[in-house]
Amino acid sequence: MRTVEWNYDTSKFQMIDQRLLPSELKVAIFDNYHAVAQAITDMVVRGAPAIGSAAAFGLALAAQQSTASDLSSLRDDLHTASDLLKQARPTAVNLAWAVDRILDTTEAFEGHTDGLRSIVLSEAQCIADEDVEINQRMARYGAELIDDGDTIIHHCNTGALATVDWGTALGVIRMAHEQGTNIHVLVDETRPRLQGARLTAWELTQYGVPFDIITDNMAGYFLASGLVQKVFVGSDRTSANGDVANKIGTYMLALAARDNNMPFYAVVPTSTIDMSLASGDEIPIEERDPAEVLALDLLGRPVTPEGASARNIAFDITPHRLVTGIVTENGIVYPPFDTGLKQVVEK
Amino acid sequence: MRTVEWNYDTSKFQMIDQRLLPSELKVAIFDNYHAVAQAITDMVVRGAPAIGSAAAFGLALAAQQSTASDLSSLRDDLHTASDLLKQARPTAVNLAWAVDRILDTTEAFEGHTDGLRSIVLSEAQCIADEDVEINQRMARYGAELIDDGDTIIHHCNTGALATVDWGTALGVIRMAHEQGTNIHVLVDETRPRLQGARLTAWELTQYGVPFDIITDNMAGYFLASGLVQKVFVGSDRTSANGDVANKIGTYMLALAARDNNMPFYAVVPTSTIDMSLASGDEIPIEERDPAEVLALDLLGRPVTPEGASARNIAFDITPHRLVTGIVTENGIVYPPFDTGLKQVVEK
Repeated sequence: MRTVEWNYDTSKFQMIDQRLLPSELKVAIFDNYHAVAQAITDMVVRGAPAIGSAAAFGLALAAQQSTASDLSSLRDDLHTASDLLKQARPTAVNLAWAVDRILDTTEAFEGHTDGLRSIVLSEAQCIADEDVEINQRMARYGAELIDDGDTIIHHCNTGALATVDWGTALGVIRMAHEQGTNIHVLVDETRPRLQGARLTAWELTQYGVPFDIITDNMAGYFLASGLVQKVFVGSDRTSANGDVANKIGTYMLALAARDNNMPFYAVVPTSTIDMSLASGDEIPIEERDPAEVLALDLLGRPVTPEGASARNIAFDITPHRLVTGIVTENGIVYPPFDTGLKQVVEK
Repeated sequence: MRTVEWNYDTSKFQMIDQRLLPSELKVAIFDNYHAVAQAITDMVVRGAPAIGSAAAFGLALAAQQSTASDLSSLRDDLHTASDLLKQARPTAVNLAWAVDRILDTTEAFEGHTDGLRSIVLSEAQCIADEDVEINQRMARYGAELIDDGDTIIHHCNTGALATVDWGTALGVIRMAHEQGTNIHVLVDETRPRLQGARLTAWELTQYGVPFDIITDNMAGYFLASGLVQKVFVGSDRTSANGDVANKIGTYMLALAARDNNMPFYAVVPTSTIDMSLASGDEIPIEERDPAEVLALDLLGRPVTPEGASARNIAFDITPHRLVTGIVTENGIVYPPFDTGLKQVVEK
């Protein structure tokens, strides 16, 4: 079962509801694109490749929902849906990438509206299938960087749940494990939404990879103590110069890796590389509801005083000077990133 | 009301139970030193100066509990209690400092055992009273470093609750606010025990200092965005070369400050400076129960998969190269710290 998937029996779209894991494995079913956009905003699904694929299938729902009987009206409906889906979350570039790719594919089409509808679905399916294949290619490249006995710090969740299947940075870790390399993973819990403690720990348990959960602020201690050999993270958007936008906390993790001369790798499908942006300064950073930060105690009471306010920045930018290498499905890019990224994107 | 306090009416020792704040303000009462040692281990009280003072009053309870009728037996009982109290937590040097200071004071005493008992209590009271006075002196020095309009990141809790009263780093912030300086505080929530989100937010609400809670991993974003001008932290033990042991996450925060050329200050009573240790490498680092990390969700269910393991490192070392200045009750020390710290300790 995939994280995001079209059900051809029911002509509906389904996703694992990641907010309930690991307590409950529930599949959410969608028959309209508005609900898909809302689910992306609410983080029923998260992870750049997974939300790209979800938006693509959302567009397939939009095509199915549209009652347009001529191509022009159907295209208008698709553009309306596309605009909404792109706005669901701002930082990951995959939403726009996936939706635009489908719109591009349909552009030259001439014929019956049902033909266009079926092209939208087949292109969305193509994006999903490609994602799995791309992740496995990245995993094979990345696994070559891992040595027997390595302890690896991993931030957020970048596994099967963050993609259609297999994963990016966590896919590399899984591949190394499946190849028989002995590794241990320190799983950043990843405040505020605990994607590491909830989702990465759940995936690693299933793969049989040994791990310990740590709070994000412990990574520096373990790196400074010589107990960690490598850091692997994903990316929601990488700019042309190699600056990496990723889950909040990645920048401080990269600083700790650099301060201790340990390699820091980002695992990045080329679909998340935005060559239109010169640097990470141009990447929009999402700020979410402060309620996600104002934590509750073991009895469900707020731990913060009444009326306390919070900020909830969802991503940060790790400047390329802190990045050792960027693993893509077309090979590993080392500095200078500007030329290297151009090559893998155009491959 | 002080965080730790001797009750002269009942001859018992009392402390605010910090595990229940801000939901509940409860005072825990102690009539024996074993319970005090356990309360320090369980973090009923925390913060280097507060646990130092708690251990001192614990020794006063030990003197009161002892049925010894000769000085030598009473001294033996005090040494037994002292050994237990010192073991309650390993990283903060104040436990040993406070207990040893009392034992030293009693050494030359000759006379009735009750005289010795009363010396132990009066020296413990003296340590507590001095703590408040020292904190206010540090606060006045530190407040001179703060400019109107500053946004300050603060880690863990270093306020009245971490001391007998007033606080160290948070005392500086409170002093600046009382002097009329306009400031805004970003409160690191401080995983895993959320001393920032719970205790610092509670104190700042009472003082009327504007603040926002952030997750620890957001500090880098705010520093890189130019939205923060200064970082203030406390310290549980500072070695002779200026390496600062403090709550886990301090090191990564210092890295983020340095990477953005923002000053990083530690506010450190001389009682927490351990001149017997050449560097932070020699400071023992406490590892606590993994259960503190394996977090629960809003419904009180574990968010981590069954059987997941965790590490729970309570402190880290910030190397002196990342420290801009060390504020003590005898003035602010700038690099080179080795000579400067020697001067303020011997003052």
